[in-house]
Amino acid sequence: MASVLRGMRLEGISAYAPGHVVSNARVAARLRLERMRTRRSGRLSAEEAKLFETSDRWVRRFIGFSQRRFCPEGEGTIDLATRAAQQLLARLDASPDGIDAIVFGSVTPSHLCSPPDAAMLQDRLGIPLWLGATPREMKGADVSLACSSWVTSLMLCYSLIRSDMAQRILLIGADRMSATINWRDRGFATVLGDAGTAVLCSAVPEEEDWFSPARFWSWLDGSCADMIRTPAGGSARPNPTARELATGQNKLAMDGAAVRSTLVPFVGGPAVEAALSKAGWSLADLDLVSLHEANRTLNASIVDMWRKRGFAGRVLDAGGRFGNTTAASIPLALALNPGHLSVGRRFGLFAFGGGLSASFALGTVRHPLPAFVELGQA
Amino acid sequence: MASVLRGMRLEGISAYAPGHVVSNARVAARLRLERMRTRRSGRLSAEEAKLFETSDRWVRRFIGFSQRRFCPEGEGTIDLATRAAQQLLARLDASPDGIDAIVFGSVTPSHLCSPPDAAMLQDRLGIPLWLGATPREMKGADVSLACSSWVTSLMLCYSLIRSDMAQRILLIGADRMSATINWRDRGFATVLGDAGTAVLCSAVPEEEDWFSPARFWSWLDGSCADMIRTPAGGSARPNPTARELATGQNKLAMDGAAVRSTLVPFVGGPAVEAALSKAGWSLADLDLVSLHEANRTLNASIVDMWRKRGFAGRVLDAGGRFGNTTAASIPLALALNPGHLSVGRRFGLFAFGGGLSASFALGTVRHPLPAFVELGQA
Repeated sequence: MASVLRGMRLEGISAYAPGHVVSNARVAARLRLERMRTRRSGRLSAEEAKLFETSDRWVRRFIGFSQRRFCPEGEGTIDLATRAAQQLLARLDASPDGIDAIVFGSVTPSHLCSPPDAAMLQDRLGIPLWLGATPREMKGADVSLACSSWVTSLMLCYSLIRSDMAQRILLIGADRMSATINWRDRGFATVLGDAGTAVLCSAVPEEEDWFSPARFWSWLDGSCADMIRTPAGGSARPNPTARELATGQNKLAMDGAAVRSTLVPFVGGPAVEAALSKAGWSLADLDLVSLHEANRTLNASIVDMWRKRGFAGRVLDAGGRFGNTTAASIPLALALNPGHLSVGRRFGLFAFGGGLSASFALGTVRHPLPAFVELGQA
Repeated sequence: MASVLRGMRLEGISAYAPGHVVSNARVAARLRLERMRTRRSGRLSAEEAKLFETSDRWVRRFIGFSQRRFCPEGEGTIDLATRAAQQLLARLDASPDGIDAIVFGSVTPSHLCSPPDAAMLQDRLGIPLWLGATPREMKGADVSLACSSWVTSLMLCYSLIRSDMAQRILLIGADRMSATINWRDRGFATVLGDAGTAVLCSAVPEEEDWFSPARFWSWLDGSCADMIRTPAGGSARPNPTARELATGQNKLAMDGAAVRSTLVPFVGGPAVEAALSKAGWSLADLDLVSLHEANRTLNASIVDMWRKRGFAGRVLDAGGRFGNTTAASIPLALALNPGHLSVGRRFGLFAFGGGLSASFALGTVRHPLPAFVELGQA
C-alpha cells in the first residue's frame, strides 16, 4: 500500500541579513539628529525629550543588542526572502520544480493589499507554473501574527503536510523591520533589524515526523492589543494626517514595561507548561530552545524561570547582533547555530509578541539539517 | 475506538455590510470633485483627465455594479468582522467558548504590523482565554492573498481540522476596501466596497466531510504581480513622498485590461479544468458556483466559457449591490442566497485576483447551512 507521507521534516534552513551594519551608537546618533529636527518645530517636554535618548551602554544593558542590519532603500521584505530562498535552493542543490506551496510569514509585506509576497516569490524563484498546457498547482499565503508569525506559519505548513494537501513547502520568515521604525521613539528604534529566512518543509513517512499535532500550541489575547501597535496607516485609520506622519504614528510603537510584565510571567510559566503538557513533555526534555529574540534581557528572564522549573538545555539565539527581526528571528537563530541541531535533539521554538500572541512548536530532529547564513556586503 | 473528526462542515455563515450606501452617481461626483481639486495644482493631460471620468451608465455597463457600501470614518476591518461574527454566534445561539482558532482573511488589516486582527477579534468576542489557572489554547493567523484571501483561508481551516489541529474555527473574510481607494483613478474607485463575513468551520466525522484534500486547488503567478498593485506604503517603499501620497500611490491600482485578458481565459479554461480534474469532477457536476465578485462583466465572460464546457448550474452572487469586497465577496454571496445551499448540492467557490493568484474550493453541502445578513442603518 502506498503510504501517505504525513510527517514533516525540515530539509534545510537559510538566513540572509543585509550588509549595512548599524551599531547602537549609530542608532543613538540618528535619534539625536531627529531630536534636533523636532526641536525646531517647538519645545519638547522632558517626557518627550527622553524618547530620543539612548546610548550603546543603555541598549547593551537593557536590551542586550550590540548591532542590527538594515536593508538599503528600495529593497523590501521580498528581497530579503528571495536571497534566503535562492541560497537555500542553491546550497541544497534543490530544484524549485518540486515546491508546491509558499507560506510567507511576515509583518512587513512588500506591498499593501497586493501583490502578495508569496506570489512575487514564485516568480523570483522561477517555480514552474505549467506542465505542458496544464497549470501546475501552487498553494500560497501571506501569514501574519506579529512576532508569532513564523511559528504560526510553521504550524500551518505542518497542517498542510499532515492533511496531505502539500508535500514540499517553502516556508519564509522575513521582515524589513527598519521600514516600521519611528525615529522619534527609542522604544523600537533601538530594537528592530532586517533579515530574511527560508526553510524547506518536506513530507516524510509518519515514523520520521519531527512534530505531531499535539506539539503545536498557540494563544491570542486581544485585551492587550494596544501594547504593541501601529496607530495609523491600517484600515482603522487609513489616511494619517501630515502631523501623524511627522510624529511617526504610522510606525510601530510599544509599551515596553507592559509587554515585559505581561509576557515574562506568562511565557515563563503557564504558557510553556500548557504547551509541554499538551505534548506530554516537560521542560527537562528540551535539549535546545530558541525564543523569539525580542529583547535579550526579557528573554533571559523567561529562561531563568524555565531553569527553575527544570530546563537544562541550551538556548540558541542570534547573540544580539541582528536586532529583533520579527518573523525571521527564530529561523535566523537556528541557522546561526547549525552544530547543535543534530539528530535526536528535542527542541522548543517559542514565539510571542504583538496581539498579544504566542505560538510554540516542539519537535525532535530526525534528519540532518543543513543550515546556511549569508551576510550581505556593506 | 474514539473517532477523530477529520471532516469539515460549515455550521453557519454571516455577512455584515455597513449602512452608508454609495451609488455609482455618487462615485462619479466624488471623482469629478477630485479632478477639480487636482486641476488647481496644474494642467491635466487628456489621458490623466480620463481617469476621473465615469457615470452610472458606464459602471453598470462595464463593471455591472449599481452601488457599494462604505464604513464610517474611524471604523476598520476589525469592526466589520466583529459585527459579522457577533451576529453569527448570536443567531446560531453558539457560545464563543468552543472556538479554538481564528483564521482572519483580509487584505486591509486594521493595523500595520501589529496588533493582528485575529487577536483583536478574540477580545471583541470575549472568547475565554483561561481554564482556571491554565491558559486555553487558541490558534490564529491573519491570512492575505489578495482577492484569493478567503478561499485560501478556508483551505487553511480545512487543513487545520483535517490534521486534527483544530475543531471549531472562526473563519473571517473581511475588508474595508474603501480605505484603499485612490479617488484620482476610476479604476478601483468604481469597484471597491466594504463588508465583513464570518463562518464557523467545525470538525465532523469523515463521512460527513463537505470537502477533501483534493477539492482545493490554488495557483500563484508573480510574473503578473504589477497588474494589481499598491506602489507605495509597503516595506518595498515604506515612506511615500508628499507627492506620492497626493497622487494616491499608496492606494491600490489596477491594469484592468491586462487583468481581464489574463484571468478570463485562465479561470474560464485550464485553471478550472485542472481543479476539477484533481477532484475527479467535471463542470457538469457543479450545482452552484460563486466567483469572487471582482467585476460582473468579467465574471460573466468566465461563466460563458464554463457554460460552453458543460456547466449548467446556478451562479450565486451579490448582484452588484456591494462592489468588490475582496476577502468578503464569496461568503457574502453565499449568505445572500441561503435558499440554494441545500443538502446534497455540489458547489464550487472560485477566487482569483492580485498576485496574480487563484484559489478554488469544491464541496458538497451535507448539513443545513444557516445564513444571516445584516445591513447597517444609514
